[in-house]
Amino acid sequence: MSPQQIDEIVAAVHFDDGGLVPTVVTQFDTGELLMLAYMSDASLRRTLAERRAVYWSRSRQELWRKGDTSGNTQRVVALAVDCDADSLHLEVDQHGPACHTGTRTCFDGDPLAVRFTAPDA
Amino acid sequence: MSPQQIDEIVAAVHFDDGGLVPTVVTQFDTGELLMLAYMSDASLRRTLAERRAVYWSRSRQELWRKGDTSGNTQRVVALAVDCDADSLHLEVDQHGPACHTGTRTCFDGDPLAVRFTAPDA
Repeated sequence: MSPQQIDEIVAAVHFDDGGLVPTVVTQFDTGELLMLAYMSDASLRRTLAERRAVYWSRSRQELWRKGDTSGNTQRVVALAVDCDADSLHLEVDQHGPACHTGTRTCFDGDPLAVRFTAPDA
Repeated sequence: MSPQQIDEIVAAVHFDDGGLVPTVVTQFDTGELLMLAYMSDASLRRTLAERRAVYWSRSRQELWRKGDTSGNTQRVVALAVDCDADSLHLEVDQHGPACHTGTRTCFDGDPLAVRFTAPDA
C-alpha cells in the first residue's frame, strides 16, 4: 500500500477531540466480533503500512502494537470507515485469543450478558 | 426483564466522561456488523425495557429510538459488555437498512475501503 493511499485514507477519518477513532475489530472469515479498540492517526498509519493491528492504548497512553507482548497478533485483512467517517471496521485474522483476559473475544466473559429467548417478550 | 436486572446491568457499565458508551451493533443471526452507536444510561435502560434499540444521538443531542422516523427498527436479541465494561455489544434483528444513507450497514458505502487480497503482502 502506497504512502499516498495511506494519506488518503487517514485524511478521510474524523478523529475525535482526543485524536482517536473507535475501531470495531472482527475476525475476517467468521465475522465474529473480537473487540473494540481506538486508533490514532499514527496507529492507523502503522496498521495499514504493516498490515498488523496497531492501536492507541488509552490506559497506557501509548501506541499498542497488538501481540508484541502476548503474541496474539492481528493480521489486517480489510478496513472501512462508516458513513460518518467517525468509526472504523477492521477485519483481521486473529492469532490466539483477542482478549487480554485470555478469552477468544472481549465480549465473552460478561457475567451479566443478556440473551432474550422468546422472539417477542 | 425486571427493573432490578436493568439496574444491575447499567451499574456495571463504565460510561465515559460524556456519559456515553460506544455500542457495536450486529445482526444476531448472521453476525454482520451493522453500525457503531452510543448509549447513555437512559438509552440503555429503555433499550432493555422495550427490547428496541434506543441510542443517544451525539449530533442531535437527544435520545434516538431507532426507526421512529425511518421505520428501520432494531429488535434487541442480546447484550454484553466487554472485559473493561467500556463498550457494549448489542445483537439485534434489523428491520430494513441499518444506515441512514439507505445501505444495509453503515460500513457499506466507503469509497476508500481497503481489502488486502494476498495473505501476506
